[in-house]
Amino acid sequence: MPVDSNADIEISAFTWVPDFAKGLVRDLRVRWALEEAGLSYRERLLDARHERPEDYFSEQPFGQVPIYRDGGIHMFESGAIVLHIAERSEVLMPRDPVGRARATTWVLAALNSVEPRITELANIDLFNADADWARARRPEVARKVRERLGRLAAWLGDKDHLEGRFTAGDLMMATVLRNLRQTDLVAEQANLAAYVARCEARPAFQQALAAQLAPFEKHQPADAA
Amino acid sequence: MPVDSNADIEISAFTWVPDFAKGLVRDLRVRWALEEAGLSYRERLLDARHERPEDYFSEQPFGQVPIYRDGGIHMFESGAIVLHIAERSEVLMPRDPVGRARATTWVLAALNSVEPRITELANIDLFNADADWARARRPEVARKVRERLGRLAAWLGDKDHLEGRFTAGDLMMATVLRNLRQTDLVAEQANLAAYVARCEARPAFQQALAAQLAPFEKHQPADAA
Repeated sequence: MPVDSNADIEISAFTWVPDFAKGLVRDLRVRWALEEAGLSYRERLLDARHERPEDYFSEQPFGQVPIYRDGGIHMFESGAIVLHIAERSEVLMPRDPVGRARATTWVLAALNSVEPRITELANIDLFNADADWARARRPEVARKVRERLGRLAAWLGDKDHLEGRFTAGDLMMATVLRNLRQTDLVAEQANLAAYVARCEARPAFQQALAAQLAPFEKHQPADAA
Repeated sequence: MPVDSNADIEISAFTWVPDFAKGLVRDLRVRWALEEAGLSYRERLLDARHERPEDYFSEQPFGQVPIYRDGGIHMFESGAIVLHIAERSEVLMPRDPVGRARATTWVLAALNSVEPRITELANIDLFNADADWARARRPEVARKVRERLGRLAAWLGDKDHLEGRFTAGDLMMATVLRNLRQTDLVAEQANLAAYVARCEARPAFQQALAAQLAPFEKHQPADAA
């Protein structure tokens, strides 16, 4: 679905971000879910290089992207928004209670058991690589990420997806694992690397990624590399 | 509700944990949600001092507590389980779509925007306090926690709960904030401290806490302080 300025659903995103963040900003998850669900949306673009407008905090207390609006529904947190969209699409969320419980489990596992360790490592690699504390700390953080990825790879085995079929849980896990792209940690687990590639090959992901990147070209600052 | 060995719902928990973890293990969230919903449950107690039995990983890929079973429903991740229980109780989840979207938003905000920073700080304070890297890193981690708590306190203002009434979002946020008990960071924000106390004063929380602590006394190891 092309971004449609007349759509009912609105999401917030950034006009431009530096290379390290391109393709990783969390509106990608929401765009992807909307594409899977066949729902069109409009964008509300914010300038990431400036402070958020003060009234944005009344909608998103932490100033983060994305927020989501659809009529009277006002949400934030990409995980919550993806779960909300998933309610409207069997592509994302099986209708039977057992499958639904599993998909929900994996959305939360991605966000609370896998992502925090990955974020800690990315914070070291992207923003603190030369700090003494980061050099001392990195091996243990990498070990903890590797341990969790090993468990995840063991669960996945030779399956195509975390459960019998693609769900919102795979969408979330794939976007979380993408935050390791500055490392070889996913590549170390061949089945996990293939799994991420399989999720990224979905047309809905490709459309979502292109939609996130489109404004960045248009708004490339003259003083940025 | 007393723990009931004949209940349909089963959760996993630990026989015993050291003092730093007492009242913080994540089965507390699920016990609390079940108490709010008026659902009885049975326990499957694991020894935290030993490796998880290998077959536990086939149910919980990361070996964590709690898991949740109810007939054919098999879940893990406290956030997913609380959302699942909330579907069955208007105490935890408003039935209108707008209120439901807000409660879901706050469950995810607690788990993905607040808890990771708090966990990073707790990992320093509880397990690495004397390490050189931890001394160098702590001020920045504490600053990031404080910044987020300040935004949360600004959102809360003089309200009793994050939205107009208690929901699963408050349950989750209160349990997340409890992980700062080794610091004064919550106490620095008077309205946030009162909010946590307000949530903890709920009879369902008190029953859940007592239920988590009960096995610990019975299973206190002879060689532990």
